Amino acid sequence: MSLIESFNWRYATKKYDPSKIVEEDKVAQIIEAVRLAPTSSGLQPFRLLVISNQELKEKIVSASFNEQILKDSSHLLVFAAWSSYTEERIDTIAAKQAEARGIPLEASMAYYGKLKSMVLSRSAEENFQHAAKQTYIGLGFALAEAAALRVDSTPMEGFDSAKLDELLGLDKQGLRSVVLLSLGYRDVENDKLSKMNKVRMTTEEFVEVYS
Amino acid sequence: MSLIESFNWRYATKKYDPSKIVEEDKVAQIIEAVRLAPTSSGLQPFRLLVISNQELKEKIVSASFNEQILKDSSHLLVFAAWSSYTEERIDTIAAKQAEARGIPLEASMAYYGKLKSMVLSRSAEENFQHAAKQTYIGLGFALAEAAALRVDSTPMEGFDSAKLDELLGLDKQGLRSVVLLSLGYRDVENDKLSKMNKVRMTTEEFVEVYS
Repeated sequence: MSLIESFNWRYATKKYDPSKIVEEDKVAQIIEAVRLAPTSSGLQPFRLLVISNQELKEKIVSASFNEQILKDSSHLLVFAAWSSYTEERIDTIAAKQAEARGIPLEASMAYYGKLKSMVLSRSAEENFQHAAKQTYIGLGFALAEAAALRVDSTPMEGFDSAKLDELLGLDKQGLRSVVLLSLGYRDVENDKLSKMNKVRMTTEEFVEVYS
Repeated sequence: MSLIESFNWRYATKKYDPSKIVEEDKVAQIIEAVRLAPTSSGLQPFRLLVISNQELKEKIVSASFNEQILKDSSHLLVFAAWSSYTEERIDTIAAKQAEARGIPLEASMAYYGKLKSMVLSRSAEENFQHAAKQTYIGLGFALAEAAALRVDSTPMEGFDSAKLDELLGLDKQGLRSVVLLSLGYRDVENDKLSKMNKVRMTTEEFVEVYS
């Protein structure tokens, strides 16, 4: 199966079969895809919460506009971005990179110094928006990996992030929830969308070629 | 090859072999991946520019901080998001969705009406930021597809977007450049990074599990 076939197979699932749980090895591969996703300057400015606890999923319903999906899906992934970039956070990454690559920290001082002077001059909100965008690359990798494994998923932006941050204690960790992705298996009988055509711009409408 | 193997194979290429051109069928599959990427409410609020014209790539150098990559890579993808959501743009998508799915436009009036009242009450900048995030899902799909095809790529945020918008006439189309992705084949001999370890948080650091 090619990845394009997987991309055509997937759709934003609207109704899950609550009796079907996603196998742990598949969940692990979806998490691994997100972990491997590239981010600006390699900072990985977000964390991933993986929630299969039914009680917690149902609590999250109060902060969400997708009650049925939260209740019926097998796992909920919460992408939570850094509320801002800080010197400490960047220093931690710089040290990690130097160690993993066996290069002295001094060799990358100039690079990280420039990075720090750039991001630390921006507002927390600007930095959060930048970090939030990075989570969407991770979201893309999760969607791709889930589709390749034939696991259904639903990306969701419709939720009360302040409420969810409080509920999950994200605010205390300097994190803000950005986007959700549920995982599970579609209820083909009861999900009208599962039989509908995918709607996209044509390539001609979508792409401009300069060759 | 699993997708996880592809994700491990890829890295942000720093030096391309200028003599190697990415085959057109592979470029087409990478474009198709972006076209199939999901977006909020299915709006696809961005366009994709695919630039292999060497003269134009070299012009873009003036707006970029990645001269060598722009010159040596085979193709440059420019992800350009809507500068804002407008009633007209949403109506166009609504009509397209109704037609593709064979449902009367009236059936989705309530949905799109709610969507319009939400997005049209936001500032252009907020809408642009929202659209920009959607492009990053497309970026994720492009990175995944390129890796699966063993095409090298480099995502780039370091450029002067206002300058690039003017150069490509994006401003006149109500678009703003968000992120770039070069495509090509790595110059293994001259790209130190190609031999370095990938640096990522460990799964334990990156993920919080609630089971």
